[in-house]
Amino acid sequence: MKSLLQNLARWLVPVCFIAFSFSEEPYQLKLAMSWGSDFPVFSESPKRMAERVAKMSNGRLTIDVIGSEEHGRPLDVFDMVRNGEYDLGHSASYYWKGKVPNTLFFTTMPFGMLPLEQYAWLEHGGGQALMDEVYQPLGLLSLPGGNSGSQMGGWFQKRIKNTESLNGLKMRVPGFAGEVLSELGVVPTNIPATDLYEAMSRNVIQAAEFVGPSTDFNLKLHLAAQFYYTGWHEPGAELQFLINDEVYQSLPADLQAILKAAMRASAYDTYVHSVDVSAQAWADMRRQFPTIRVKDFPDEVMSELRRVNERKLVEFADDNDQARRIIESQLGYQAMMRNWTLLSDYSYLESIGR
Amino acid sequence: MKSLLQNLARWLVPVCFIAFSFSEEPYQLKLAMSWGSDFPVFSESPKRMAERVAKMSNGRLTIDVIGSEEHGRPLDVFDMVRNGEYDLGHSASYYWKGKVPNTLFFTTMPFGMLPLEQYAWLEHGGGQALMDEVYQPLGLLSLPGGNSGSQMGGWFQKRIKNTESLNGLKMRVPGFAGEVLSELGVVPTNIPATDLYEAMSRNVIQAAEFVGPSTDFNLKLHLAAQFYYTGWHEPGAELQFLINDEVYQSLPADLQAILKAAMRASAYDTYVHSVDVSAQAWADMRRQFPTIRVKDFPDEVMSELRRVNERKLVEFADDNDQARRIIESQLGYQAMMRNWTLLSDYSYLESIGR
Repeated sequence: MKSLLQNLARWLVPVCFIAFSFSEEPYQLKLAMSWGSDFPVFSESPKRMAERVAKMSNGRLTIDVIGSEEHGRPLDVFDMVRNGEYDLGHSASYYWKGKVPNTLFFTTMPFGMLPLEQYAWLEHGGGQALMDEVYQPLGLLSLPGGNSGSQMGGWFQKRIKNTESLNGLKMRVPGFAGEVLSELGVVPTNIPATDLYEAMSRNVIQAAEFVGPSTDFNLKLHLAAQFYYTGWHEPGAELQFLINDEVYQSLPADLQAILKAAMRASAYDTYVHSVDVSAQAWADMRRQFPTIRVKDFPDEVMSELRRVNERKLVEFADDNDQARRIIESQLGYQAMMRNWTLLSDYSYLESIGR
Repeated sequence: MKSLLQNLARWLVPVCFIAFSFSEEPYQLKLAMSWGSDFPVFSESPKRMAERVAKMSNGRLTIDVIGSEEHGRPLDVFDMVRNGEYDLGHSASYYWKGKVPNTLFFTTMPFGMLPLEQYAWLEHGGGQALMDEVYQPLGLLSLPGGNSGSQMGGWFQKRIKNTESLNGLKMRVPGFAGEVLSELGVVPTNIPATDLYEAMSRNVIQAAEFVGPSTDFNLKLHLAAQFYYTGWHEPGAELQFLINDEVYQSLPADLQAILKAAMRASAYDTYVHSVDVSAQAWADMRRQFPTIRVKDFPDEVMSELRRVNERKLVEFADDNDQARRIIESQLGYQAMMRNWTLLSDYSYLESIGR
């Protein structure tokens, strides 16, 4: 009996493939990135994700990854996914703080968590639930999209000896870090990455922060400034995958699972990729330009930056209850996790002589 | 015309599901773990992987995860997957050094890479290709299975002031670390985890290394020894997923992709889970037992350990060409990557005052 059914089944298979191809046409989704299609590391995260999805779904779900050079609106990805123009996005949560203030907290915070600490907060410390609370009312899902790794504090033409050295300094430094630095007398400006070398050479600015060796080397910033300061403001920027929730709900459960697993694996892969590219670029830079001088900001500057940062966190927390709960969750988890980071990885590096 | 076909297709769908259920019966694989089904963190890695696979494949691929309490052969997982008794395994590569010496190098090495550094080596520094070179001739695939995070150096009843303090010390410390320590006069023994507290209380041993706060707290080691030393010998043990290659080749391409992506995502998730559990356990331990004294081994001891370790690496490299290539690849990548780790995460922790 089973054998008869099996024969019948085998005969039916070609017919069924045709039937399925009409009953479930493949899902074709569009993803908009906040970067160009060739932007190193970042753009590879959604591309790798899309490849995995196509393979795992056997072509039932395909994702077209569109770079900013095509859609032309890198800082509108949030709106384009929200209004359904695109189904998915790859961007960074803190870009949307002008639209929805509490999106600020889900990328990276000055004096905040390292990438691994932040992944642990998202997954086990209530972070993802808080991110959902911010994004769900907007009809969006936001999931980790890959980490840049710890960012450098920037290139300076003169050595920073104390807070006085910062006074009146024109510096390319956007966002929250710029706001904090401005309270120490820095004049923050935003200049497109590709113009930075010229702006520094012509003394339009005297300092510039971008990302780290992986990007800075191509921008030739080391040719315009000698001092390379270690970071304090972006200990690890987590990118985001954005999903239009209505689109997500329209997918069958197996394709939902495939999409989420592909995003998860690709996010972590991107973090690993970031540190590899940074390490390679830093090795090249040091070999070719041994006169680059690496510096930490002096303690006096760091305490001032921290003081301003803490005051700003209090202002955010006073502004609304959700912000307060997010900040308290982050600070509480970070304090606990940091003790372990120091006892494990940090002590290891210190006791083996680095 | 299309509408007619669609109607026909819809009518055919229930028939086709029956047809498919006979033509492609679900793949049911068995996975053997080197730990019990309830062993914290480690056992959750393959369980999470199996759940993801079931969802993503819509039940076409299911994996039965079997703990050591059931199969009774935790240290035979390698053989059981190789001979096809089990399709998959979850274990650690260095357990198999007695069978295939060069499997030693793919878990963690004393004075070696931190977990993230090692992931980068595997993916971008040629590490996975070398692991394939070791495992493929055995008919096996070995893939990252999740990381324990940096391990502690162990519990000591007396403070270690110099190499003399180690002389004659009976210590629970298995494997390579035990071999290195024995050259400094330590008498290494292996005692089951659950007997460690009693062995220390009755002075059968005076020191014990196991994993870290996540496991040590339950074993009550802090009640038998006061000094908790930071680690040098296992900066991050990467577990492994083992796949019988013949079984892997028998799967359709989409299920192969699903299996690999689920393993990748679950491996990273397990690393994140490890640090969360370690941090929570360490916070509890410190709160409840504030008299625990954390120590780094003195420089004299560390240089001796490093000297012995380096001599052993030379012995391995002299033994066979494959070992030499693996060691050279690891040391070369680590030297490059460590410079970036120190410039980024380490400098960040140091300059913000930790």
